[in-house]
Amino acid sequence: MEEKSKEKIRKLGNDVVSQLEKKENPNITLPVRSLSNIYFDPQRRLIKIGDKTSKRHYLNVAHTKKFMQTLLVASECKKIMDQNVTTSIRDLYYALKRTINGTNENTFDSQADSDPVLEDLEAALNMLREELHLKADRKGYMSGSIIVEDAGDSINCAKMGSSGWAIPSDVEPEMVKFLENRAEFVLLVEKDAVWQRLNEDKFWKKQKCLIITGKGQPARGCRRLVNRLHNELKLPIYVLCDSDPWGLYIFSVIKQGSINLSFLSDRLGTPDAKYIGIMSTDLQKFDISSNVTINLNQQDKKRIKEMLNYIWFKPREWQKELKNMLKTGHKLEIEALSSKGIRFISERYLPEKIKNRDFLS
Amino acid sequence: MEEKSKEKIRKLGNDVVSQLEKKENPNITLPVRSLSNIYFDPQRRLIKIGDKTSKRHYLNVAHTKKFMQTLLVASECKKIMDQNVTTSIRDLYYALKRTINGTNENTFDSQADSDPVLEDLEAALNMLREELHLKADRKGYMSGSIIVEDAGDSINCAKMGSSGWAIPSDVEPEMVKFLENRAEFVLLVEKDAVWQRLNEDKFWKKQKCLIITGKGQPARGCRRLVNRLHNELKLPIYVLCDSDPWGLYIFSVIKQGSINLSFLSDRLGTPDAKYIGIMSTDLQKFDISSNVTINLNQQDKKRIKEMLNYIWFKPREWQKELKNMLKTGHKLEIEALSSKGIRFISERYLPEKIKNRDFLS
Repeated sequence: MEEKSKEKIRKLGNDVVSQLEKKENPNITLPVRSLSNIYFDPQRRLIKIGDKTSKRHYLNVAHTKKFMQTLLVASECKKIMDQNVTTSIRDLYYALKRTINGTNENTFDSQADSDPVLEDLEAALNMLREELHLKADRKGYMSGSIIVEDAGDSINCAKMGSSGWAIPSDVEPEMVKFLENRAEFVLLVEKDAVWQRLNEDKFWKKQKCLIITGKGQPARGCRRLVNRLHNELKLPIYVLCDSDPWGLYIFSVIKQGSINLSFLSDRLGTPDAKYIGIMSTDLQKFDISSNVTINLNQQDKKRIKEMLNYIWFKPREWQKELKNMLKTGHKLEIEALSSKGIRFISERYLPEKIKNRDFLS
Repeated sequence: MEEKSKEKIRKLGNDVVSQLEKKENPNITLPVRSLSNIYFDPQRRLIKIGDKTSKRHYLNVAHTKKFMQTLLVASECKKIMDQNVTTSIRDLYYALKRTINGTNENTFDSQADSDPVLEDLEAALNMLREELHLKADRKGYMSGSIIVEDAGDSINCAKMGSSGWAIPSDVEPEMVKFLENRAEFVLLVEKDAVWQRLNEDKFWKKQKCLIITGKGQPARGCRRLVNRLHNELKLPIYVLCDSDPWGLYIFSVIKQGSINLSFLSDRLGTPDAKYIGIMSTDLQKFDISSNVTINLNQQDKKRIKEMLNYIWFKPREWQKELKNMLKTGHKLEIEALSSKGIRFISERYLPEKIKNRDFLS
């Protein structure tokens, strides 16, 4: 796998060299990453990138600098892969930033120059930055009856105290292995405070599951982990978010990937993920006081109306849910369940939802 | 300890009851938390709260609602302590939010109402919210040759893979115990990316230390952990931040606490902490290219000038450092060291600084 990654970068460089040897104008082929080349694949139920490509030429004044930057980033990635170390995208920028000899021109002026070049490279090589030995930001925690191996250490996620296993940025199979699993499903919760409540109640033990929080919008490592747990261990994925546009957006990114990282949807999206709550109908279903609702503001309403037109929210049950949100005029945070008692979520809400298979998908 | 905490809350309630029985106007005494009552204690080298107090009366139109809110929060804390569970400050708000019978008045309208009441209570009882069974936000990671116990699980921080032990919100001695330590000092780094570099290089093994990152400004749990590692295990604390006003502010909060939480400085501040870098003189000392510096903006310059007047930056070496920052006109991020090679920080910069005891304190 690691060899294959290096081979891809080597090929990129070799292609440029052979163009030079043939005295051709050197160029690199990159997928077009603008909206015009991004679509929803109804078969695979993922946001995908199309097959339009563009060429970046060395001998083109509009391309020269980006061409140079692309090769610089690729060569630095190869260097850190050869050294078998990893680094951050900020370090990458600093390692490459310099003034070009005899000019006042910098290779990169800011990280805003190097980040998109790296994304181009990920898309061109069809590789995650983690495979290029670069770390993305990380956040999120997991606990439950699974033993994982991370960087050679064996970690029992059933014995991780109050804090859980911190999900690393790089959870590719070379780095993170699933050694022994006894869980039967995964519950992904938007909020860390809710995760801590469930962890303290050992919800994962009673329900034979893994509990994960992404602390808001999950980082890439967390999304990739969910994808691997589903595909490799065949675990169903249930997602618990606030009943508001942001919560639904988090769910949709887990499910079908994002426009930004459309070239990685295969590895970051999990189309079989189910939405377990909070639903706009929970207020009545669980007899929750309407004191704890929050009114939708204009922006929320606008977002919900946009979402009604999204192809992945077209199924009848989602249309009903979104329209009901507009009708009731309020949102509902997960913590609102606390008005029914601190353990209501772990002792009644979630067990009932799971038992009745009360999901949206 | 737990009993003592409950006793403090019980006393608060009993005092009100006995005032009622004596037909007095019930009141609660609270420390004044405004700037007028906050000072730097040169003996203890901590930001402290003074002894001015004020009374919150029930029969005072300006106080009635806050009086009610204070008792509500105190009684909910007692309830969750009695149930032996913990919860978040957001859940606390939802658990207490309701419309008062026969009125249109809510107990709390938003969390912005309940948070300050909780801080009042922490200050009045001289207790951390963690002791009241409330969780603050958490972030930060630790690795190194120490075995800790967290919520009954034993966690070996030398075997935590690529991600380290996630520092919990509550690291009070009841929750987190130091079982076995072989480290000789603590290195606290501002940035997670740098922490990951050091962790991958097993810097903690080579240098016999613990490495901690607070991911920016450390959360309360992280500051309290550093305080305990220093006071209980007698470990020196070295802090590595960016050379900019924000980095110095992070160091100063670790060292002498913050104005906001001045009533907790004893437990969150570590006056013996040393600043290991980045220093404005490192550019020359380590022959770093000036390409990687960032110019100070107007706001930075203003902040540095303010800092020159802070009592804790009065020592000669700090005045020199701050003035040199202004003179050179630039800031320097930790990642700038990567321009000297990815392992420069772990193989040369830090070992040299530690060997030469090149600190500011």
